Amino acid sequence: MSLLVVGSIALDTVETPFGRAEDALGGSATFFAAAASSFGPVQVVGVIGDDFPADALGFLTERDVDLAGVESKAGESFRWSGVYSFDLSTRETLETRLGVFADFAPRIPEEFRETEWVFLGNIDPVLQIDVLEQIHRPHFVACDTMNFWIDGSRDALLQLLGRVDLLLVNDAEARQLSGDFNLARAARWIQAQGPRYVIVKKGEHGAILFTPTGTFFAPGYPLEEVFDPTGAGDAFAGGLIGYLSQVGRVDDAELRRAVVYGSAMGSFAVERFSVERFRDLTVDEIHDRVRQFLEMTSFQLPITEEVDV
Amino acid sequence: MSLLVVGSIALDTVETPFGRAEDALGGSATFFAAAASSFGPVQVVGVIGDDFPADALGFLTERDVDLAGVESKAGESFRWSGVYSFDLSTRETLETRLGVFADFAPRIPEEFRETEWVFLGNIDPVLQIDVLEQIHRPHFVACDTMNFWIDGSRDALLQLLGRVDLLLVNDAEARQLSGDFNLARAARWIQAQGPRYVIVKKGEHGAILFTPTGTFFAPGYPLEEVFDPTGAGDAFAGGLIGYLSQVGRVDDAELRRAVVYGSAMGSFAVERFSVERFRDLTVDEIHDRVRQFLEMTSFQLPITEEVDV
Repeated sequence: MSLLVVGSIALDTVETPFGRAEDALGGSATFFAAAASSFGPVQVVGVIGDDFPADALGFLTERDVDLAGVESKAGESFRWSGVYSFDLSTRETLETRLGVFADFAPRIPEEFRETEWVFLGNIDPVLQIDVLEQIHRPHFVACDTMNFWIDGSRDALLQLLGRVDLLLVNDAEARQLSGDFNLARAARWIQAQGPRYVIVKKGEHGAILFTPTGTFFAPGYPLEEVFDPTGAGDAFAGGLIGYLSQVGRVDDAELRRAVVYGSAMGSFAVERFSVERFRDLTVDEIHDRVRQFLEMTSFQLPITEEVDV
Repeated sequence: MSLLVVGSIALDTVETPFGRAEDALGGSATFFAAAASSFGPVQVVGVIGDDFPADALGFLTERDVDLAGVESKAGESFRWSGVYSFDLSTRETLETRLGVFADFAPRIPEEFRETEWVFLGNIDPVLQIDVLEQIHRPHFVACDTMNFWIDGSRDALLQLLGRVDLLLVNDAEARQLSGDFNLARAARWIQAQGPRYVIVKKGEHGAILFTPTGTFFAPGYPLEEVFDPTGAGDAFAGGLIGYLSQVGRVDDAELRRAVVYGSAMGSFAVERFSVERFRDLTVDEIHDRVRQFLEMTSFQLPITEEVDV
C-alpha cells in the first residue's frame, strides 16, 4: 500500500534540561516518515533550502522513504528553535525562520498521485486542500492542524474537514476548533463537520480515538526518562497511519491497534533528540512496546459478571 | 469484610456553571462511604457540629453505613464553599470554616477496632497515625493526603507512609511529595517510603496504579455532562477499596479491577451535586459503566504477533 505525507522538513535547534541539539533534523514530514517507514514505504512531499545538509535525509532513504517529492529551492531551510521548561511540560519558541517553507506550494510528483493513504501534516489548510486536488483517489486521508490555522484559516479548514477521514488534534485544538471545552462533545462536533474519526492527542496523558460507534483510550507510555518531546505528535501519526496502511483496512479493531502503534512510536520519539531514536529502532522493540501497552491497560471483568464485550 | 473510613463530614456550598448547591452533604468520609457502600457495609469515623441537619446522613444509614463513629459536638460543622471555573478545570475556595473539625481527634469505637480494611481520608498525618494505633490488626490500609500536609507535616506523613499499603494522591501531590516531576519516578520514590502500591489520580485524565511489578492505567470516563467535580477523588477511593474489601484479597488482577470500579464511582460522583448520584445508583449501572471502561480500553495484538501477555 502506498502512503504519502506532506509537511515541513526543518532544522531544529532544541534545548531541554538534558542537553541541546543544533540544526537537528525536524519537521512534521520528517518525524512522520521516520516513524511510518517502520511499517512500509513512505512518499514525502516537502521543501528544503539550498543550505540543507547534503546527507541529512539519507537515513530516510535507507528506510524506503521516497524523497522524490522533496523540492530543493534557493534560499534558507525552515528553522525552528525552542527551549523546554525543566519538567518538559511547556516550551518557548525562540525563533521561527520559515525560509523556503514560506512559499511552499506542494507539487505531488506524477508517480505519487495514485497513492492510497495520505497524511496532511500541519500546513495551511488551503495547501492541504490543494494536495488533495492533486491526488487521484485516496483511500484514506488524515490531517493535522494547529491553533494558528483554526484561528486564521477557519473557513478553509472547515472545507478541508469535509474531505478527510481522520483529524488528529491535541486537546487544546479540539476545544478551540469546536468552541466546546468538553472533549467528548468537541469530538462529536468535529465529526459532524466531516471526519468519521477524530483522535485527540493529550501528550503524556495519552490519546483518545472517537469513532462513530465508540471511544478508545490509549495512555501515554510512562517513560522514566523523556529527553526531547519535539516531534512526538508526528511520530504518533506516522505509527498510526503507517500501521493502517500496512494492514490495508480501517475498522474499529485496526484503528485501536493503530492508536497503540502510534502511541508506541510517539514514546520512542521522545527518548532522544530529533529522529535519532528511529535510526536503530527494531521491529521487535516496537512490538515489545505495544505488548507493554496491552499489559498496562488490561483488566478482566469479575468472574461473577457476564462478560459481553 | 469490615471497612472503615476516617475523614471529614462537611456541608459544602458549591457553585458550578450549571447551578448552585447550598450546605450540601460533603466531606471525604461522606463521599467515600456513599461510594463504598455500594459494595458492602462501611464504618465511618468523623465529627459533625450541633448544627448538622438532623437527617442529612440518613441515606448513608439506609445503605448499611454504620455511623457509630460519628461524634456530634457543640459548635459549627465543617463548611467549605467554592466556585468552579466555566470549564470545571479549576476551582476557587471562597471560604473554609473548620468548626468542630479543627479539634477532630478521631476515636475509633471499640466495635470498629477489629476492622480489616481502612481508608484514612485526607486529615493531619498525625491523626492518621493515631487512627492506626487504635486499630488492632488491619489487613489493608490506604491513605490520602494533600499539599498542605506534604508541606507542613512532612515528617509525620513519611512516618505514616511506612505503615500503609496504598497511597492515593493526585499528580501534583505525587510530584510535590517526591520532588520529582516525572510521575513514574515519583511513584517509585513513594513506594520506597513504604506503600507497596501507589495510585496517582489525574482527574479527567484518569488514574495510574503502580505496583511492585507493573503499571496499570484507567482513563477518565468521557462524560458529556460533568455537573460538579467535588468529591470525585473520595468516591474513587470508595469504589476502589469498597470493591477490594468485597472480594477480600489484593493481587494484581483485583487491584486493576478495583481501579476501574473506583474510576466508575468517581465518574458517577460528578454527574450531580454532592452525593446525590449515589442515592439511586444501581448495581447494574455500576457494572455497566465498568463494562464501558473495558470497551474503551480493549485492543487485541495483531494476529501475526505472538500474544504472551
